[in-house]
Amino acid sequence: MRRKVYVSGSRPDIRVPFAEVTLSGDNPPVRLYDTSGPATDPVAGLPALRAGWIAERGDVVSVPAAGPANVGRIVRRAAAGRTVTQLHYARQGVVTPEMEFVALREGLDPEVVREEIAAGRAILPNNVNHPESEPMIIGNRFLVKVNANIGTSAVTSSVDEEVAKLTWATKWGADTVMDLSTGKHIHTTREAIVRNSPVPIGTVPIYQALEKVGGDPLKLTWEAYRDTVIEQAEQGVDYMTVHAGVLLSYVPLTVQRITGIVSRGGSILAAWCLARHEENFLYTHFRELCEIFAAYDIAFSLGDGLRPGCTADANDSAQLAELKTLGELAQIAWEYDVQVMIEGPGHVPMHKIKENVDLQQEWCRQAPFYTLGPLTTDIAPAYDHITSAIGAAMIAMYGTAMLCYVTPKEHLGLPDRDDVKAGVIAYKIAAHAADLAKGHPAAQGWDDALSKARFEFRWEDQFNLALDPDTAQAYHDETLPAEPAKTAHFCSMCGPKFCSMKISQDLRRYADEHGVDEIAARDLGLKEKAAEFVATGAEIYRAP
Amino acid sequence: MRRKVYVSGSRPDIRVPFAEVTLSGDNPPVRLYDTSGPATDPVAGLPALRAGWIAERGDVVSVPAAGPANVGRIVRRAAAGRTVTQLHYARQGVVTPEMEFVALREGLDPEVVREEIAAGRAILPNNVNHPESEPMIIGNRFLVKVNANIGTSAVTSSVDEEVAKLTWATKWGADTVMDLSTGKHIHTTREAIVRNSPVPIGTVPIYQALEKVGGDPLKLTWEAYRDTVIEQAEQGVDYMTVHAGVLLSYVPLTVQRITGIVSRGGSILAAWCLARHEENFLYTHFRELCEIFAAYDIAFSLGDGLRPGCTADANDSAQLAELKTLGELAQIAWEYDVQVMIEGPGHVPMHKIKENVDLQQEWCRQAPFYTLGPLTTDIAPAYDHITSAIGAAMIAMYGTAMLCYVTPKEHLGLPDRDDVKAGVIAYKIAAHAADLAKGHPAAQGWDDALSKARFEFRWEDQFNLALDPDTAQAYHDETLPAEPAKTAHFCSMCGPKFCSMKISQDLRRYADEHGVDEIAARDLGLKEKAAEFVATGAEIYRAP
Repeated sequence: MRRKVYVSGSRPDIRVPFAEVTLSGDNPPVRLYDTSGPATDPVAGLPALRAGWIAERGDVVSVPAAGPANVGRIVRRAAAGRTVTQLHYARQGVVTPEMEFVALREGLDPEVVREEIAAGRAILPNNVNHPESEPMIIGNRFLVKVNANIGTSAVTSSVDEEVAKLTWATKWGADTVMDLSTGKHIHTTREAIVRNSPVPIGTVPIYQALEKVGGDPLKLTWEAYRDTVIEQAEQGVDYMTVHAGVLLSYVPLTVQRITGIVSRGGSILAAWCLARHEENFLYTHFRELCEIFAAYDIAFSLGDGLRPGCTADANDSAQLAELKTLGELAQIAWEYDVQVMIEGPGHVPMHKIKENVDLQQEWCRQAPFYTLGPLTTDIAPAYDHITSAIGAAMIAMYGTAMLCYVTPKEHLGLPDRDDVKAGVIAYKIAAHAADLAKGHPAAQGWDDALSKARFEFRWEDQFNLALDPDTAQAYHDETLPAEPAKTAHFCSMCGPKFCSMKISQDLRRYADEHGVDEIAARDLGLKEKAAEFVATGAEIYRAP
Repeated sequence: MRRKVYVSGSRPDIRVPFAEVTLSGDNPPVRLYDTSGPATDPVAGLPALRAGWIAERGDVVSVPAAGPANVGRIVRRAAAGRTVTQLHYARQGVVTPEMEFVALREGLDPEVVREEIAAGRAILPNNVNHPESEPMIIGNRFLVKVNANIGTSAVTSSVDEEVAKLTWATKWGADTVMDLSTGKHIHTTREAIVRNSPVPIGTVPIYQALEKVGGDPLKLTWEAYRDTVIEQAEQGVDYMTVHAGVLLSYVPLTVQRITGIVSRGGSILAAWCLARHEENFLYTHFRELCEIFAAYDIAFSLGDGLRPGCTADANDSAQLAELKTLGELAQIAWEYDVQVMIEGPGHVPMHKIKENVDLQQEWCRQAPFYTLGPLTTDIAPAYDHITSAIGAAMIAMYGTAMLCYVTPKEHLGLPDRDDVKAGVIAYKIAAHAADLAKGHPAAQGWDDALSKARFEFRWEDQFNLALDPDTAQAYHDETLPAEPAKTAHFCSMCGPKFCSMKISQDLRRYADEHGVDEIAARDLGLKEKAAEFVATGAEIYRAP
């Protein structure tokens, strides 16, 4: 059985959710990290879990919204002269309730959380205007996280559908969700998503800024962009992708590529720079952005606008030039106590993945890396959740802190509900495989509990422990649906007579009864041993 | 469009199949490796492509079958005193038509093929009684291959279904197929599979041997096993899994594991050894097996009966002890000019994968490695094609020559048609990702052709180049089914106004017209450049 449980911290209002799987027999329950949040009422939204923690620090004021889209609303922002970021608190030596929450969630010491945030090696994204979110952390020392992209496009989808996708994505384990809406109703869609999201929400503000100037990138201005950022800051967006590293001089480096620029934000800014022959306004106004981000505790996700769009373009001069610039920008953000992560590719063949992470860690001084995939081959549209789960698992093993999922629809269309689930599951697999490889203390126990259940033919326990219990049970029941099969010592793959696990159990029973050393006494030539096994082991292939 | 083409070799009867994808515009066609074979008539079977090559060497005789199950049949075997293996010919310096065939197939020099086979670093499995198969090669220097397991179990499936799965598996790219049938009708099922298979067929003879002795492993004898091997040899099985490395003394090493022994063959032999307190008869009779294999050119697939069944058991003493023994057995096989590959795990967390390959390559003197997965985590039953595609891609990059697929039904039930396809596709992705990482000359061109088609919005070309054209097109058409969308400069993912590829094309056109250097002249401050781009680039977001 799976049920939601809460673990309390040092104060009663710190209650960290887990999915607890109770197992049969005397097997201890297994607690799994749980991103699903409390049940949400789409109209009312979620309760403001963090409101008290924010208020009690006394550094936030409630003021009328500045953004015209939020007119009439009261929003939070830093009081004059105050900085309200978790990085700021961490550097002051303060372990916030948010930090304690994530420490309990990860099974680590709160001081480790504080240190990693203070050093810039981890971020805890939580805009003061999104008090509904449950704190989580993104950094190399922590569990690898997964982001799911949702959002309308001009061609398809509605607000209700997107909120349903949000809930669906967090049910299956999305640690953050990016609302990449374009087209109409961007503001309304985002409002519904933020109010109902138990996980941090990320956006790419330039998409909405572009809509505001009529869709013509040449008409984009710093002022239009800035106002969009403030509008989204007031709504509660927790991190924003900012393509401030797409410099005018880097654009020509992409011209000889097979697939040019494949980031939407990157291509918009490249067009802007080239058309005006001016430097990227996100770069020239970066310090102003830092001031805004610091006032709400928004984290930068420094966008890789020049990421490769095919394996042939991986780790090229355009990408690496931008990465170096992102490293410089991260240090500027840190001057303002603003949290930062760095976005990464994209499409990278396996043999170039490690180099990519190593350069990022060096040039960006270990700021958390947040990568899209990478896809390890370009030949499999409709299966890019798999081409990229391979790259994602590897890049996470080498140090990426958060993986942006890719769905089966990548390159082909907007993901629907099924695609969202397929993408999240594939990426939870990649993330967990990396957690195992990195030795995160919370990782191996899950595998071992499931493997033990498998060996002992506890089918219900296996299903409940599975990343996707519904599908695991459905697949099993396709060929052996009857209830007795749930305790059968075989499945339809091998049938009753060829189950190695069954035979192994007989061997183990024999070993338990006789002692391992005795069996190992290969050269003793004791034929009576054999006779004993035959007598006691009885029917090795006993059909249930 | 995709169509089958044949490339001729030095003689007219060497005709190597490819799937040729013709592209629009002046883009050259792309030739893809093709495993689907000529269309088969399930009753008549496939034509005996290799019969002439086998006959002309004059070292094979046609004799009445020895196996009782094949009574009345004329079969091929080596003439007295002759050895008919490709390893034998390669060591004699002979490039056989089979070797030339695979050289053309891989785009490599025939002499490379011969050298690799002669050195034991590659195998060309082709039983003289399976002349229907199209030659293929398994070795670290060649394209990474994929095996699909099919076969009935006592609980489910029929002969017709299994032949359909065979055809389906090779359509999607299976390079070899293993018939793992248990239960009734093993002989009949295998006969149907071999006669209709354009790819080499592998088996695990102990499954049938066990059925012959009534399902009781304690009644297994060398004689029953040997006769089963001969029966299968006469049918044309190209390689056989032989668990000769499961030694009595290794069995106790598995007792403390979480999942004991998970290989069916391994557990059967462990039970046999323990019950009798005798050494594994496959080990004690190994040289006799070599003599039989040499007479038909059957390749050994030395089974890893003690492979780990969960991540916690990976690379443990049981597994490594057996691996070392497999290395010793490989050298014995080579004494008899018998081709050998080595089977590998199983379940291995990412950080232990490289060690596994490195030890195999060292201890088995670079005999080809043939691995099942490995699964990189145990938590995702129903998605083990993905948990294992991650491990498969990595282990192939490090040197595994052939990957045994895992389907979504692994651990849960017998795979159906859809599962077979899902498994093959996931593994073709893993194999190709490794080919790219290893720099196989035939690999990168496929990705680049598809990426170029993507950048140029040649949707039909993208679909035709896709690993699975049907699904790629179906996904695209879900949201943009109309025919004009096939030439549209966007898809539903981003919609017409946010397509980065579209913007990139505009940038490239501008660069072509003005020269890259001129654009790069960032500090020239030539505002007229900008004006020019605006004038010539015209509408950047031109809806089609």
